[in-house]
Amino acid sequence: MYLLHGKLIAKEGQAKALADILLEASQLVSTVAGCKLYVIGKDEDDLNAVYITEIWNNKEDHDNSLKVGGVRELIVKAMPLLDGPPKKGQELQILGGAGI
Amino acid sequence: MYLLHGKLIAKEGQAKALADILLEASQLVSTVAGCKLYVIGKDEDDLNAVYITEIWNNKEDHDNSLKVGGVRELIVKAMPLLDGPPKKGQELQILGGAGI
Repeated sequence: MYLLHGKLIAKEGQAKALADILLEASQLVSTVAGCKLYVIGKDEDDLNAVYITEIWNNKEDHDNSLKVGGVRELIVKAMPLLDGPPKKGQELQILGGAGI
Repeated sequence: MYLLHGKLIAKEGQAKALADILLEASQLVSTVAGCKLYVIGKDEDDLNAVYITEIWNNKEDHDNSLKVGGVRELIVKAMPLLDGPPKKGQELQILGGAGI
């Protein structure tokens, strides 16, 4: 399994709007084959940051999710809220565990 | 909900043994109240690192899990495999999403 842990930086005052778009995306993405987890997080010490933590059966399933109808539109909607282009997230191979 | 994303560094050659202990811990921890996710990950570019990504209903549920019978024993077993004391993990507040 494939885990992607990414951090987005919103422009000042836009973190909630960004998180709301990502929460909307999570509802679409959860229906895509191979999606095990897609959660949106906030760091109370870094108020402009919004985190996405995803687990997929494999990286290909994740990559395909970016092409799903509706998801692309949400990405386009989110981009102007970002303070610069998103950085590459942390990629891990999941060995196992509980809750997936 | 509470997410904890932690990185442990194993002594040279001990990452698999450490991951195996954590996988054993995940089976115990998954029965604890409030545990939504407890997965063990590896970074292929950092072979001594082992990651634990956990989601709990709240931080208190996580903290209580460390006192569960069997978990403490596994922590004691894991400590000598670590290359130094574990650093504090990244703590996030989960706003929502899918798969939890």
